[in-house]
Amino acid sequence: MSNATAITPTRAQDFPEWYQQVVRAADMAENSEVRGCMVIKPWGYGLWESIQRQLDAKFKATGHVNAYFPLLIPLSYLEKEAQHAEGFATECAVVTHHRLEAQKQPDGTTKMIPTGELAEPFVIRPTSETIIGAAFARWVESYRDLPLLINQWCNVMRWEMRPRLFLRTAEFLWQEGHTAHETEEEAIVETRTMHKVYEEFLRDHLAIPVIPGEKTERERFPGAVQTFTVEAMVQDKKAIQAGTSHYLGQNFSKAANIQFLGRDNTRQLAYTTSWGVSTRMIGTLIMAHGDDDGVIIPPRVAPTQIVILPVTPKPDTRQEVIDACEALAQTLRTQTFAGEPLRVHVDKRDLQGGAKNWEWIKKGVPMRLEMGPRDITSRSVAVCRRDQGPKAKEFVPKEDLIQSVTERLQEIQDALLARATALRDANMKKLETLEEFKAFFAEGSEGGFALMHWAGSSEEEETLSKDMKVTIRCIPHGDQFAEEGKCFLTGKPSTRRVVFARSY
Amino acid sequence: MSNATAITPTRAQDFPEWYQQVVRAADMAENSEVRGCMVIKPWGYGLWESIQRQLDAKFKATGHVNAYFPLLIPLSYLEKEAQHAEGFATECAVVTHHRLEAQKQPDGTTKMIPTGELAEPFVIRPTSETIIGAAFARWVESYRDLPLLINQWCNVMRWEMRPRLFLRTAEFLWQEGHTAHETEEEAIVETRTMHKVYEEFLRDHLAIPVIPGEKTERERFPGAVQTFTVEAMVQDKKAIQAGTSHYLGQNFSKAANIQFLGRDNTRQLAYTTSWGVSTRMIGTLIMAHGDDDGVIIPPRVAPTQIVILPVTPKPDTRQEVIDACEALAQTLRTQTFAGEPLRVHVDKRDLQGGAKNWEWIKKGVPMRLEMGPRDITSRSVAVCRRDQGPKAKEFVPKEDLIQSVTERLQEIQDALLARATALRDANMKKLETLEEFKAFFAEGSEGGFALMHWAGSSEEEETLSKDMKVTIRCIPHGDQFAEEGKCFLTGKPSTRRVVFARSY
Repeated sequence: MSNATAITPTRAQDFPEWYQQVVRAADMAENSEVRGCMVIKPWGYGLWESIQRQLDAKFKATGHVNAYFPLLIPLSYLEKEAQHAEGFATECAVVTHHRLEAQKQPDGTTKMIPTGELAEPFVIRPTSETIIGAAFARWVESYRDLPLLINQWCNVMRWEMRPRLFLRTAEFLWQEGHTAHETEEEAIVETRTMHKVYEEFLRDHLAIPVIPGEKTERERFPGAVQTFTVEAMVQDKKAIQAGTSHYLGQNFSKAANIQFLGRDNTRQLAYTTSWGVSTRMIGTLIMAHGDDDGVIIPPRVAPTQIVILPVTPKPDTRQEVIDACEALAQTLRTQTFAGEPLRVHVDKRDLQGGAKNWEWIKKGVPMRLEMGPRDITSRSVAVCRRDQGPKAKEFVPKEDLIQSVTERLQEIQDALLARATALRDANMKKLETLEEFKAFFAEGSEGGFALMHWAGSSEEEETLSKDMKVTIRCIPHGDQFAEEGKCFLTGKPSTRRVVFARSY
Repeated sequence: MSNATAITPTRAQDFPEWYQQVVRAADMAENSEVRGCMVIKPWGYGLWESIQRQLDAKFKATGHVNAYFPLLIPLSYLEKEAQHAEGFATECAVVTHHRLEAQKQPDGTTKMIPTGELAEPFVIRPTSETIIGAAFARWVESYRDLPLLINQWCNVMRWEMRPRLFLRTAEFLWQEGHTAHETEEEAIVETRTMHKVYEEFLRDHLAIPVIPGEKTERERFPGAVQTFTVEAMVQDKKAIQAGTSHYLGQNFSKAANIQFLGRDNTRQLAYTTSWGVSTRMIGTLIMAHGDDDGVIIPPRVAPTQIVILPVTPKPDTRQEVIDACEALAQTLRTQTFAGEPLRVHVDKRDLQGGAKNWEWIKKGVPMRLEMGPRDITSRSVAVCRRDQGPKAKEFVPKEDLIQSVTERLQEIQDALLARATALRDANMKKLETLEEFKAFFAEGSEGGFALMHWAGSSEEEETLSKDMKVTIRCIPHGDQFAEEGKCFLTGKPSTRRVVFARSY
């Protein structure tokens, strides 16, 4: 085996291009002929199915139920919340006609002509606060109807000018939670609960440590009172916003007229929240864990956790080896990992062994097992951990492997989290002065998360962000970086450091 | 308890209006302000989640994987397959712009104006043969890449002029399977396999007996070589097409250029199939099983299979009763029914008992259990089967119930299938002459499925269908109604009866 890596270029050579090549090599997604819209291929979609199933269980455990609302939003709905309207105004797909006429051309071909112009155009939902708000207004009459705790899994569309697979696409898949409450306090608890769900999901399922915190006014969701975010660092030291939870106050309930008869018999406006994560998490996962040989998928969410590769040097022992591999797979499938049956695949394709092996490396399957005629005789299995590089191989007695397999998967899960945490911590710096700050983000420097005391205005934030091409990713929550100091720009007193970074 | 039913009007009085009222009373869905688009409420969506989860397992067991393709289809894609284009030409949502501008009005309000006209408009997918075909053309190079066995869960849109909740809506949720094969034979096997999956799913999960068969040329999917259908009869004796599986031959692979290098080293066109079922199945289920008190959901797919209603006449025993109900629920939840953990809900709301009870009757929960202070003393439970009407109640020792609960659910499942089968069989008639046929479908008559010898042309079928407002639902498969006879219209020889019916 040479020292060449499976992916060209490497991360160090050209990170953005490495990313594109990794997605392609793993066969997870591709660009379609519809500008900005991707095709999510089975391996990428399988990962989304894991994420969806596991997050959905967490939503249901916190009292939410799923529902489905219309794809199309009347323009008049968007006009009701002015800030929201302006925030989403520049990037919507607009439906203006409801019919096509097939016209035969003189050359025998058919041409489709839009007809049936609509009196009021619709946009394809970029997010559903307005249309779900209209439903909530119909559903809520009394405080007894509250809280409403609803989630929707669906596609949304924002006309992106610079799309990038998973991270930023015109159409993407997501979930959007929408809730309505009797009191401000209850709505804020909900917003924070879901923020916590995201933080824990990213850490425990995707092995990505995040900094939970609040967005500044400038970075808030259009129309929100408060936006909470979880910010991940990926391997080029940039930040990715991996999920957000918004406290909307009464802004959207006023716009949609979500009124209820309160306990004191007066009509009141509900307090609402919304929160979401999307297929962008897949891009985050790839950038957080991938190496120069491709994707590495944490065991908890891997569509296949273990692939068994029969080693069949001679045709006459081929069937025996395959049978032994199938038997091992069956035994492993009776076990559970993190509450789900083990997902084990036997790759029986009649391909050259090296090619097969590299395919699964590039796809990032956490554990590969090899078994050949000699292993059957010696009752052992070659165990390859994806997180330890393509050459790592350990021969383990089969019975030991069966005993220890879930422990071994948990070790991989933990190792990925530890590695991502070490990377983040090594690239997160407390800086004190504008000079240090400028040097940290200067062209050609490593960059990372700059932890800065900040007490500037929105205008100062805007200027600084534009000059340096960085943003305040969040004002961290809780004990994180809470300490007395002085704003590095204005010198005003500050009680907590905020996180500045370049971002996707 | 009076003899009044929970739903007004009854089925006998006005079936279409009964249907609307049943959907409303069960809180399953409602019309939105977007014309023809429904909101699927949590109880209706919960049913869809059951259907989705169970069908998805069947698709995976037959070798399919899920993927996701763009929502938008370039008009030029539709133009490639002329028959397909014409078939879907009249009912599409067309996207013509990709930007909105928020314009402040003199009165302070905001108005949204579509801008950014697209060079080539898109339609929102009415079905995805064309866009998935384009992806398949990229993916397939050699016979080794075949078969491609892909499924997609998504929303689709057809601009319906006469929408009806679940049965016919502008936007609906569905799954669409798309496969590509090396040979015609293999593609036909696939088409029939999925046809069989639908038949069995409807029978074993939804308790709906269907007649599997083939559509006539006139009723075929636009662009298909053969369309297979499963036809259900609902309680007003009309037919509902509950699922279809299409053998597309090389029509779509020619249009999309899905070529592969064959075993003989020549370039060949793949053979493709597509197959789908939608949220329409929920409407079918309601019309098949509902009674004058509301929906009845078969246990296998019920979002909640058992609801436990604490009977709390006195405040001082309330907590004790609730604790006993919760304990029973926990015990029941450790059991599985048809491979899934029992779905049991305890309704602890502080509402009047009768109101609660009727709410669950209208929602169609298969089994209700009541437990009060006296039942705790006597260690018994009142068991109410939804399929036996609102007054049915059996007192059962608690231990016996725990022992027998899954058997009892299976009894309900079986009873619903038996009832639906009896209804269908009683309203399916072999007729021989045009006079009998006309009488069968005359205004004011019962109608049903007319089993007719048929050897007419497409034109004769068209004329007859328009005159009588009936269609040939299918040419049954296998042994069903295979017998020698003469066409009732033309007198030509026929070897099998076909099914004529009015339909949704």
